[in-house]
Amino acid sequence: MDGEGLPDWRHLTKLDPDRENSEEVVEAVCTSGTDCVVLGGTKGVTEDKASELYRRVSEYPVDVAVEPSDPSTVVDRGDPLLVPTVLNAGSPAWIVGMHKEWVRLTEVPWHRTYAEGYVVLNGESDVGQVTDARTDLTAEDVAAYAEVADRYLGLPVVYVEYSGTYGDPLVVEAAADAVDDARVFYGGGVDGFTRAREVASHADAVVVGNVVYEEGIDSYLDTVEGVLDAASPP
Amino acid sequence: MDGEGLPDWRHLTKLDPDRENSEEVVEAVCTSGTDCVVLGGTKGVTEDKASELYRRVSEYPVDVAVEPSDPSTVVDRGDPLLVPTVLNAGSPAWIVGMHKEWVRLTEVPWHRTYAEGYVVLNGESDVGQVTDARTDLTAEDVAAYAEVADRYLGLPVVYVEYSGTYGDPLVVEAAADAVDDARVFYGGGVDGFTRAREVASHADAVVVGNVVYEEGIDSYLDTVEGVLDAASPP
Repeated sequence: MDGEGLPDWRHLTKLDPDRENSEEVVEAVCTSGTDCVVLGGTKGVTEDKASELYRRVSEYPVDVAVEPSDPSTVVDRGDPLLVPTVLNAGSPAWIVGMHKEWVRLTEVPWHRTYAEGYVVLNGESDVGQVTDARTDLTAEDVAAYAEVADRYLGLPVVYVEYSGTYGDPLVVEAAADAVDDARVFYGGGVDGFTRAREVASHADAVVVGNVVYEEGIDSYLDTVEGVLDAASPP
Repeated sequence: MDGEGLPDWRHLTKLDPDRENSEEVVEAVCTSGTDCVVLGGTKGVTEDKASELYRRVSEYPVDVAVEPSDPSTVVDRGDPLLVPTVLNAGSPAWIVGMHKEWVRLTEVPWHRTYAEGYVVLNGESDVGQVTDARTDLTAEDVAAYAEVADRYLGLPVVYVEYSGTYGDPLVVEAAADAVDDARVFYGGGVDGFTRAREVASHADAVVVGNVVYEEGIDSYLDTVEGVLDAASPP
């Protein structure tokens, strides 16, 4: 998998079908200037909830991608599928096991499926708990996982995931320095302009999510500005 | 990793540095017409033993590749490195964990490193035991792993490994049918002409090893003939 066709997104917004997504939130996100709305969550996502949110988001002219958390919740309407493999998971199921089951269940649209090599760094987060992630990693460890994902596995995306907390920008930088072709996505604790700009200076793309629900729309819109600002010439 | 530069080997011979490799065996193997001599074993391989066997094999004009079983035994003399990931291992260490450690230890020559996505099917074998492989798999499971290796991970090689026993040709065929770009390697129980020809009709490459040590040189030479015969027009 070489990532051919993966759009050059810089700011992504993850909406969780299991949370309350008011009309105000959906409209603000879909018209914010974010490059892509990603539908995905770790817990409690049902196909009904995902389909309903998909329907609402797809009324707007913004890229949509689906990131299933397990094979039973893949809502496939023809958009890119971002499929995680958790490189530091405690169990093979989250690395390749569920993927094998998924392939058995369905005809996978490989031409628009993109593998994301996650390194999960907040063990207290839902994704950290569910995948039993081994999070006691140095920047060198994270860089080594990034290199394995990029050069050994050939994954198009390395995803540095601090879900729920803001990470160490030096870790993100180490991951970015370690890859050749893969894009580095960063997620976790981006709650406004400053952090968005900081992490966007190292990562290829910044993923925000909780800020929409927890900090409000103004803070969310600031993250879009922060990423744009990182890309501007000084 | 797209397998660029991986030679189009059809018959490979695995020599185990931990076994007794007489001068007669080394000469017979290296002049047999096998496409590549692979240095690798699962247990008891030390760098000294691997270096010694490397020195002897490299006196012959045959391709050599090194397949390390763990990061401490990589004997790197500039030849292709075949690096396994055991997709159905019981522990993440054998999927990506040791690879991360390897990348931390060394500067990996990625341009001549090729990932092999192993599916280990004999739980009683050394590799099955060491990796705690989950071997209760149907042909559809093996095909699904092959598809994940090929399309999701982009590995250049899918390795159907029956180490020590002869496998089900239908399983090999299912794996071969499931892949698009990856080459399918088969290993296990190929002890002469008939099996070599049978499995070579499905797999891209046949790997033999024990036959050299256990059946003798004539049977080994028959495996080379069997693979050649499968490639010939009927």
